[in-house]
Amino acid sequence: MQVEFIPSDPATRETVLGILKQRFGDQLTTSDAIRKRHGKDESYHAAVSPDAVLFAHSTENVVEAITICAEHKYPVIPFGVGTSLEGHVAALRGGLCIDVSEMNHVIEVNAEDLDVTVQAGVKRKQLNEYLRDTGLFFPIDPGADATIGGMTATRASGTNAVRYGTMRENVLSLTVVTASGRVVKTARRSRKSSSGYDLTRLFIGSEGTLGVITEITVKVYGIPESMTAAVCQFPDLESAVNTTIQTVQSGVPVARMELLDDVQMGAVIKYSKLAGYEEKPTLFFEFHGTQASATEQAETVQNIAEEFGGSAFQWTSQIEDRNKLWQARHDAYYAALALRPGCEGWATDVCVPVSCLAECISETKADLKGTGLIAPLVGHVGDGNFHLVYLINPDNQEELDTAQAHSDRMVYRALSMGGTCTGEHGVGYGKMGFLQAEHGDALALMRSIKMAFDPDNIMNPGKIISI
Amino acid sequence: MQVEFIPSDPATRETVLGILKQRFGDQLTTSDAIRKRHGKDESYHAAVSPDAVLFAHSTENVVEAITICAEHKYPVIPFGVGTSLEGHVAALRGGLCIDVSEMNHVIEVNAEDLDVTVQAGVKRKQLNEYLRDTGLFFPIDPGADATIGGMTATRASGTNAVRYGTMRENVLSLTVVTASGRVVKTARRSRKSSSGYDLTRLFIGSEGTLGVITEITVKVYGIPESMTAAVCQFPDLESAVNTTIQTVQSGVPVARMELLDDVQMGAVIKYSKLAGYEEKPTLFFEFHGTQASATEQAETVQNIAEEFGGSAFQWTSQIEDRNKLWQARHDAYYAALALRPGCEGWATDVCVPVSCLAECISETKADLKGTGLIAPLVGHVGDGNFHLVYLINPDNQEELDTAQAHSDRMVYRALSMGGTCTGEHGVGYGKMGFLQAEHGDALALMRSIKMAFDPDNIMNPGKIISI
Repeated sequence: MQVEFIPSDPATRETVLGILKQRFGDQLTTSDAIRKRHGKDESYHAAVSPDAVLFAHSTENVVEAITICAEHKYPVIPFGVGTSLEGHVAALRGGLCIDVSEMNHVIEVNAEDLDVTVQAGVKRKQLNEYLRDTGLFFPIDPGADATIGGMTATRASGTNAVRYGTMRENVLSLTVVTASGRVVKTARRSRKSSSGYDLTRLFIGSEGTLGVITEITVKVYGIPESMTAAVCQFPDLESAVNTTIQTVQSGVPVARMELLDDVQMGAVIKYSKLAGYEEKPTLFFEFHGTQASATEQAETVQNIAEEFGGSAFQWTSQIEDRNKLWQARHDAYYAALALRPGCEGWATDVCVPVSCLAECISETKADLKGTGLIAPLVGHVGDGNFHLVYLINPDNQEELDTAQAHSDRMVYRALSMGGTCTGEHGVGYGKMGFLQAEHGDALALMRSIKMAFDPDNIMNPGKIISI
Repeated sequence: MQVEFIPSDPATRETVLGILKQRFGDQLTTSDAIRKRHGKDESYHAAVSPDAVLFAHSTENVVEAITICAEHKYPVIPFGVGTSLEGHVAALRGGLCIDVSEMNHVIEVNAEDLDVTVQAGVKRKQLNEYLRDTGLFFPIDPGADATIGGMTATRASGTNAVRYGTMRENVLSLTVVTASGRVVKTARRSRKSSSGYDLTRLFIGSEGTLGVITEITVKVYGIPESMTAAVCQFPDLESAVNTTIQTVQSGVPVARMELLDDVQMGAVIKYSKLAGYEEKPTLFFEFHGTQASATEQAETVQNIAEEFGGSAFQWTSQIEDRNKLWQARHDAYYAALALRPGCEGWATDVCVPVSCLAECISETKADLKGTGLIAPLVGHVGDGNFHLVYLINPDNQEELDTAQAHSDRMVYRALSMGGTCTGEHGVGYGKMGFLQAEHGDALALMRSIKMAFDPDNIMNPGKIISI
């Protein structure tokens, strides 16, 4: 998608930054290096630096900053640690980046209720580190060590979603600063409610376009008595995918079920120095439960895998081996990049009904053959969600065009199968072009929400809804 | 809450009903008896009849009707089977009731993807009857045999929610007719998506105030290999509640965990002729899984219950006995009514964080003692959700006032503990008075959504958002 960059009005910029500087002093910076870092995420999408960056320390800071910006109709872009993948943080209309990474305190742990409230800048690994002694854990794990705020804003998920759900299912309540600088709490801490419109779910996945999330209450879970991981390799992709489909249908509450195609598995073996595996389509599993139930789950899945020609399970029940395995899975993106030194990675994802997964993946792989591109495939296949990482030379326009065209075909293929243009990366500006095809008239409703919440279009303008 | 009834403008009414009659013939009725039935739900709340009732046969019917009403700014109230509990269907501004109960076809079963698409008028028991041969089931079970459309509109849940979630977690996509008569599909059929604002969740629980739901795609589940139910009786309420709290915290994936206080248990024993039980605080459990895992779950919970002085589990593993037990639980409302012949039931619910449940229930029961009211208590206690049914003589204003005052205190008690004014019944007009206290400034955001979606306030006016 062509990025349309419209700088902020110079006079407004000068006025607003002057007021902000006076109020916030050293918390505000216009240093080139810092601005540059805040206009770019981990994607290949063109970066656009904000005019300034405010390191917020509190919800009150965010309120003050937004109130000043709102008065001058000056754009605001929230920022966690910049690990988004669709250009979410690019300052397409200039404006103020509000960096919440220093709002990184765990506010409250309610162990009895299995919930935790954090500031938006708390990172997922930090949260789990914090929880370690409580016997609780937070399961959502996108590839990057993202902030909980960013994960909420993009409706992130990850390898555990097949069992524990995505951010959609795991956020109980949010504190949000609106486009007019008001603080709202979207819900109470109770597990259920039928009291009014679901504002919590509306802000989850809104990518900073409706307000800035400053605090999040999430569900946490008791660490299971038993957590065992296993690896199974398959003669071909269809067999691996069919194993996952049948596992989902059989109702086994598998905690993780990750697909790596042969190319990706080869990259991971090399990058993470995994011994004893072949460059074949591979499933990584994890089973959570009591000792007995985890064993029973694993046996059931092993039987299914065998039917489809899968290898014997290779077990990693020691915590170090298990961590190594999953770190390798989380490093799949970097492993892919290492296949072509100097390249950039263009990660994209789609999600389809599970019954269409084998067809969607095999058509996508077949389509790839003709292009000359290298693009390893990984997938949270239990959810019907898979990713390609195109390894591209960003200075080669032809390569970029080829990748874009292939990605477009993949998206329309997913849509034609009842799927979505993005399962977990979000829209940013990279996927805006597909929303009309995916949502039709529903897009007009989304636009009307944007206009109602942010009539001056100051909240992360140019993302999700084009105005 | 005082109901404010403003009849529709007579000239507009005559014009609109004339056009509708011409278009729909016998599908439209203005018969007194039918209008009356459509203005009243199962609550004690004052009924208000609509001006006419349209029996819609299709989404297209709904589009045509709403388009005509919208042109004349004439109210529209959607109706399933009228089992709501907060006056949701009362025609507070007059208008057209659109009854979708004849839109009762199961449109599509995707067994491989574990999802089913139904018309809004399909009832929950009908759906499970339909699914019986497929080995699948739909778990959400409010007390009444409600329509899936109505359950979606009120964000219903029930006894299985502790394991399977509520309508919020179990709806994948909706077809909705908006206030301007456009048909929108809120999402694709894939399990996950990060593509734009979550319109699905926004319509779930919107109670007809944002549009009329005509089709729903829901998740379904494989019927577990083993489903066993057990009953455990306790010396006091605290012990029963503490058993549930510890069960939730231990992570046992119990499928159902229902509390009945001594009064309710007495009523159920009498009404449903359950033998072998005492009039004591009681928990009904159900365990789903493989044979081995269901047994293991039950053993764990039995150990917890024993710690709190619970009786030995009385098992009902035969399907007939199990059905009888759960039918008795679902009939708890009618059993309660039978305690005071001629009375009406005023069912109300709140939901709090589980850690506050024992305190909230015991304070509520203590508060009840002074009032002279009879109000049996049942609860989906695994979610922190419980109900009272006040058994009242609706002609006795003093009783009504006493019940209202007690209910108000219960709601504010729940709010003060981080809870919500309704866990699953919804707002209707019965609970609107609590929304400001519960949501504060977030209510203004809800109002802005209502104004954006329905600027002329024709969709079920007078519910949730007062305009």
